Amino acid sequence: VRLTDLPTPAAVVDLNRVEANCRWMAERAVALGVALRPHVKTHKCPEAARLQVGGSPGGITVSTLAEAGFFAAAGFRDITYAVPVAPKRVRDALNIAERIDRLSLLVDSHEAVRAIEEAARNGRVPVFLKVDCGYGRAGVNPHTDGAIALAERLHRSSSVEFRGLLTHGGHSYDCVDRLGIAAVADQERDAVVGFAQRLRVLGIPVPEVSVGSTPTMRVAEDLRGVTEIRPGNYVFFDGFQSMIGSCDIDEVAFSVLSTVIGSHPDRSTLVLDAGALALSKDPGATHVDPTVGFGVLCDPQLRPLAHLHLGSLSQEHGKAAVSGGPMPQVGDRLRIIPNHSCLSAALFDRYAVVRQDTVVETWHPVRGW
Amino acid sequence: VRLTDLPTPAAVVDLNRVEANCRWMAERAVALGVALRPHVKTHKCPEAARLQVGGSPGGITVSTLAEAGFFAAAGFRDITYAVPVAPKRVRDALNIAERIDRLSLLVDSHEAVRAIEEAARNGRVPVFLKVDCGYGRAGVNPHTDGAIALAERLHRSSSVEFRGLLTHGGHSYDCVDRLGIAAVADQERDAVVGFAQRLRVLGIPVPEVSVGSTPTMRVAEDLRGVTEIRPGNYVFFDGFQSMIGSCDIDEVAFSVLSTVIGSHPDRSTLVLDAGALALSKDPGATHVDPTVGFGVLCDPQLRPLAHLHLGSLSQEHGKAAVSGGPMPQVGDRLRIIPNHSCLSAALFDRYAVVRQDTVVETWHPVRGW
Repeated sequence: VRLTDLPTPAAVVDLNRVEANCRWMAERAVALGVALRPHVKTHKCPEAARLQVGGSPGGITVSTLAEAGFFAAAGFRDITYAVPVAPKRVRDALNIAERIDRLSLLVDSHEAVRAIEEAARNGRVPVFLKVDCGYGRAGVNPHTDGAIALAERLHRSSSVEFRGLLTHGGHSYDCVDRLGIAAVADQERDAVVGFAQRLRVLGIPVPEVSVGSTPTMRVAEDLRGVTEIRPGNYVFFDGFQSMIGSCDIDEVAFSVLSTVIGSHPDRSTLVLDAGALALSKDPGATHVDPTVGFGVLCDPQLRPLAHLHLGSLSQEHGKAAVSGGPMPQVGDRLRIIPNHSCLSAALFDRYAVVRQDTVVETWHPVRGW
Repeated sequence: VRLTDLPTPAAVVDLNRVEANCRWMAERAVALGVALRPHVKTHKCPEAARLQVGGSPGGITVSTLAEAGFFAAAGFRDITYAVPVAPKRVRDALNIAERIDRLSLLVDSHEAVRAIEEAARNGRVPVFLKVDCGYGRAGVNPHTDGAIALAERLHRSSSVEFRGLLTHGGHSYDCVDRLGIAAVADQERDAVVGFAQRLRVLGIPVPEVSVGSTPTMRVAEDLRGVTEIRPGNYVFFDGFQSMIGSCDIDEVAFSVLSTVIGSHPDRSTLVLDAGALALSKDPGATHVDPTVGFGVLCDPQLRPLAHLHLGSLSQEHGKAAVSGGPMPQVGDRLRIIPNHSCLSAALFDRYAVVRQDTVVETWHPVRGW
């Protein structure tokens, strides 16, 4: 099957680029002296995860228990569920854990620890303490007595194997260039490495110190004190990553193939059959360019077309402005690099995996929770 | 099963409200003297569509060929696919059409008509001409010679049954109140009723004149010249509809049940297990309130909690600010009315259908294209 024969909209994964992206990060981890426990939430399919771990039996990171169960069934035996576990979902997690070597959970509250202690069966549940490194989403503030108290509780609990500290420098996405990202990477590292040292002084062993976002792991130069990194988006990259300097646009491996279904020279607009249910409504890096739109319109060879601007999306329509270039016609195919590949990919039940313009595989991601 | 026993995040449909919303629109169509051909794209499941058509054998409207095939299999025999058909998808459409009484297609280009003519087998393909009524997305401008030429071609084509004109006043979503929506409703009606009259003068019969968005059909008082309406979102409504005056917040029938997975009094924030993959990143009615956030946080009885503001979403996390009210605890359940129910519902593979807090049914929507 040729790429351009696919019914549209279609999710397209460029396998050469995925392989190159996976190789880059694996080599980078070796150079930095850390283990790579890649996140699989961007693609949610075992084929890509196997490329991430490079054939080694390395662990992976997931964002839902549905992913944990799916990847466990696909043969992955060491999984970290890197979202604070909801108390009522602990039993679901332990059921999955029984089928593999290790499913590590994440907590940042006493309520979650209590739920784990109540549900724990034979053996200790591997648990990370989530630390906030300045992003301000999940995690304890490492400079508080409360954070130390929670770490102590995890250390002393007979139901828990305290695996260490985990953080995510998600505020790297607020940056506008690599210099800014590098500062977040330092902050991400320092928050957990420093906290780990304070805990060790208190007699609390901290075996693992886990960090990582794709932007920070693309620029970090010094990860001393860190044991593992967990980037995920780098497998595909996307328009957002390219705008903040985390990748080049020609490294992006995920796109949506669409068809022009309306061409209106009188109003200089196109209508595409890829709308919010194909691309997501992620607004993109508006802090870099407020007029960014909903994706980069490209020709079928994934070369950006600067005269087309995807300014608005409704459920099943994309509307693009045309200026200073040829007007595409109804039936023409265009590829779109979405702002946020994680959200766009999750809208598809399959990806057409291509080398150049030949479909060589079909991958089926898991969905749900 | 009780609502609060569901694993989260969960899509929850309030059946009493769905029934009331469906009844209202069915009665409104009768009062206005038009047929109701409801859109099913918001919920994508046959159970809700049957409530929309009120047991009558009325037709429905779909936004994808996947919906067309799914609803055809579920017994719906008169379907309008109300997105301009991509030329290469015409054969897929005709395959579905063979299994039911009528699958009407939509065109606004000669390329699409040509594709239909090339693919047509025995019998004429029912086709609507899509008209732009000021929204500026799809559709021909009815005040142009080109629009008349396309209508003439459809009328004369031996492969086509020209069913009439179809428009969608999507710019009603740009309004801030019912008065503004009423003006769009007039525009929506006038664009197609006037164009139909001009075509009839030219000897081109126009059997159907089809209009409709949920906002315009909630306020329209006079639809003379219109034969059918196609609202869809009204089955669920959402935060956006309530903000532009299309519904009251207590008419909204769709919500996402979530669990508090982080509670951070030091930074006055909550973390919920409903993120962009549960709610979508639809920004909501920012033209009414730029600080609207990503959904209305409610208690388990769906009563809005004014002291919580869902300000940011990442893939699997929602982050809410807490001010001037009690701090929810980890493990607490909250329901969220999303900005855009169509996009949020499409992210789930099932809906828990409840009466009060008891789950009485589970519905499974179709997805894809």
